Amino acid sequence: MGGGMALLFAENGCHVSLEDPSEEAMDGIIKQAKEEGFEDRISKHSDYKSLCDSLDSPKVFVFSLPHGSVGDGVLGGLMPYLEKGDIIIDCGNEHWKNTERRQGKCVVRGIRYIGCGVSGGYQAAPDDQSLDLVLPFLRKVAAKDPKGRPCVGKAGTGGAGHYVKMIHNGIEHGMMSAISEAWGMMRTGLGMSEDEIGDVFEKWNNEGELIGADICRTKDPKNGERVLETVEDKVVQDVTGEEGTGIWSNEEAVGEHIPAPTLSSAHFFRLASADRAQRDRAQKAFGGDFPAQKLDVKDKAEFLEDLRRATYTACLAAYVQGINIIDHKNREVHWNINFSEVLQIWRAGCIIQADYIASVLEPIFAEFRNKDTMNLLFEKTVANDLKKGQPALKRVVVQAVLGDHVVPAISSSLDYIKYQTGLELPTQFYEAELDYFGKHMYDKKGEDPKGAPTTGKYHFEWKRA
Amino acid sequence: MGGGMALLFAENGCHVSLEDPSEEAMDGIIKQAKEEGFEDRISKHSDYKSLCDSLDSPKVFVFSLPHGSVGDGVLGGLMPYLEKGDIIIDCGNEHWKNTERRQGKCVVRGIRYIGCGVSGGYQAAPDDQSLDLVLPFLRKVAAKDPKGRPCVGKAGTGGAGHYVKMIHNGIEHGMMSAISEAWGMMRTGLGMSEDEIGDVFEKWNNEGELIGADICRTKDPKNGERVLETVEDKVVQDVTGEEGTGIWSNEEAVGEHIPAPTLSSAHFFRLASADRAQRDRAQKAFGGDFPAQKLDVKDKAEFLEDLRRATYTACLAAYVQGINIIDHKNREVHWNINFSEVLQIWRAGCIIQADYIASVLEPIFAEFRNKDTMNLLFEKTVANDLKKGQPALKRVVVQAVLGDHVVPAISSSLDYIKYQTGLELPTQFYEAELDYFGKHMYDKKGEDPKGAPTTGKYHFEWKRA
Repeated sequence: MGGGMALLFAENGCHVSLEDPSEEAMDGIIKQAKEEGFEDRISKHSDYKSLCDSLDSPKVFVFSLPHGSVGDGVLGGLMPYLEKGDIIIDCGNEHWKNTERRQGKCVVRGIRYIGCGVSGGYQAAPDDQSLDLVLPFLRKVAAKDPKGRPCVGKAGTGGAGHYVKMIHNGIEHGMMSAISEAWGMMRTGLGMSEDEIGDVFEKWNNEGELIGADICRTKDPKNGERVLETVEDKVVQDVTGEEGTGIWSNEEAVGEHIPAPTLSSAHFFRLASADRAQRDRAQKAFGGDFPAQKLDVKDKAEFLEDLRRATYTACLAAYVQGINIIDHKNREVHWNINFSEVLQIWRAGCIIQADYIASVLEPIFAEFRNKDTMNLLFEKTVANDLKKGQPALKRVVVQAVLGDHVVPAISSSLDYIKYQTGLELPTQFYEAELDYFGKHMYDKKGEDPKGAPTTGKYHFEWKRA
Repeated sequence: MGGGMALLFAENGCHVSLEDPSEEAMDGIIKQAKEEGFEDRISKHSDYKSLCDSLDSPKVFVFSLPHGSVGDGVLGGLMPYLEKGDIIIDCGNEHWKNTERRQGKCVVRGIRYIGCGVSGGYQAAPDDQSLDLVLPFLRKVAAKDPKGRPCVGKAGTGGAGHYVKMIHNGIEHGMMSAISEAWGMMRTGLGMSEDEIGDVFEKWNNEGELIGADICRTKDPKNGERVLETVEDKVVQDVTGEEGTGIWSNEEAVGEHIPAPTLSSAHFFRLASADRAQRDRAQKAFGGDFPAQKLDVKDKAEFLEDLRRATYTACLAAYVQGINIIDHKNREVHWNINFSEVLQIWRAGCIIQADYIASVLEPIFAEFRNKDTMNLLFEKTVANDLKKGQPALKRVVVQAVLGDHVVPAISSSLDYIKYQTGLELPTQFYEAELDYFGKHMYDKKGEDPKGAPTTGKYHFEWKRA
């Protein structure tokens, strides 16, 4: 049902009819609405008919459901009462393929089904012209960017809204991992207190590049405990099935053939973190672990500046990879994605408000219609930032490795920058191996074919000797 | 059609009927059979009826087809002529889901459809009891391990054969990447000649752990050119769609929630390598690349020993990850996978004959029925090898990073070993971030719940201040 969403709409002047299997949940919403003085705008319903009868035409539905079969059940239940022109806004974290399947079911009856990715606040990213009808509502409830603009927009057609949201979650996971890795290096590697780290994060944020510092500073007023210090190191959302977007975004990277090592190394890191019992059992088999050490850093301020830049560079690399996935998919399925709108959607209302990165991307995305491909590796401003970040990444990774810290997202971003720009990769040997064992063919150095990758023209009978 | 396969069967005394859309291809096979004196055992056919009429009952078909819809077309064409008891052995690199779908079509008519992964020689990995009928044929043509045992066996039921083969390809790609990365460090980092590197690879092989050295040594007799030095650094098989297993194995890792960073970092590395035009354009935007430098190595012999151990450890990590994927899937779909047979299948006939690793795994897999889970991280011998490898991995990664070498498979294996055994990961901050931004809940340190990951029990209102 999405109680918070219902309250937000009602608070902003909309009349809201609730329908949820839990009567108790609906009563909770109405109680809260009463306290805030707008209970006259909220009603509850125990079946689809009564719900639909309570709505004017065109009826507008907002889905806030777990991904998968639940949405199919609800849509099936509503179907008998739907009329041409009715609008369903699916604000769940739904897989874009489910969205497109339901759009197919609806379109033949003239019903508009809008895939709308929502995060934190409302980063809606929906569909076709019918969206014009609902955008005013969404703008009311959407998070606002620092300039007060609502973070809502038309991402593109079809499943684009959920797709864009899914990939953005993947990007955010890459970023969150990099930031956590930096936190670990400060906490254990430099022995800094949470307050000191909080100050560093705040400074990073002021300089316009990264997140807030609350997490480090927050104490439980009940007992004065530093909350972060009590949190267990398990990120379980993928494994428990609570959230699919982290998984799907990595499947998309692989399926679209887009290198996304920052996203996937972050993903595998949190998968491993989730299963603490497994780590415990492995540690016993290993007879110990490889605990993160104090770092041998000569100039702490200098190292912290490296760490800031390395973290930013890994975050930027995550964006590059995510945009590459979206761009590739978009050219394949013709969703007509509007990158400028997507960026505006992402500006706030997300887990990490990467405002500096957004300002780097804004002028590039404003020009997206003039580009053959939306590949950020080809953009001077992004390339310059990645290039400037490389030496810092390098110094940070060396320190991390020497000190037995785990830095999968940061470290894989460094490899990524190197191999995406290198023209003398050791994959030369790899390609030879494949031709040796499986006659996979290769191309010859210096004959550099342009354009999309194709099967090589040469084979050598390596084993004839 | 699989000309090599047809010749192998005929050479081993089987009567073979060919069917292929290309008459020319069939004539080529027959010509070769003539030269070798067994053309009386090979006939060609231009339609399914004539093909089927030429076969005794039960008819045995061997598919060697591109993955995807081609197999469906051929099966559909054969169907009118198939009878109860006929056997189809699908030796293509097929996706296991296609295999299971076709098994479903066949089983209702009493036709046996066997998914059989084949690599290099014949690492067949098929299906149910009907397999007993065809195993003698497969044993004849299968590659033999060093002790002369044929590398063929029953992997499990259903799609297990193709699944196991697919994951094995993923493992091999992790290994091939690690070996290529080591080659790059020797070639550019240590400035070694191909002959010197060939000697090192041969020594590694003699010590029982790794591949051959032919690739480094091979010269083109026509012009004396060192072939490897002429090979372009593009691995295109995934992007061109020629081979699906590399892609699918990484999708499986993500979908099964199994950390497989060695496999996926290798995968993304070769994806990036494939698109040389993209690298070229990125390099121009960057105004240069980060070329691999000469390494500042004090004791070359010592470093080479580190490199040997690091490469082996990355290869072993790839096995651990691949087996984890298979084990997880097997427990989910009940394929009754026989890990001992799988290992025997893998012993030879693969791109990399990892005989030392197989000998480490043999006693573990012999006991698989007595284990609750086939997780190599819990096995003392594997754990010991990974642990002994960690310091070498560490020194190699530091050198690689300092010298701007790309080592994605080696470097991600190091992180993997650390985070799979660590109980104080920086994901502590990550989990706090998720609870801060999205009320994702967390568990408290010290309350360590056992068993499978579950959603945390606590939430803190971080933003109340």
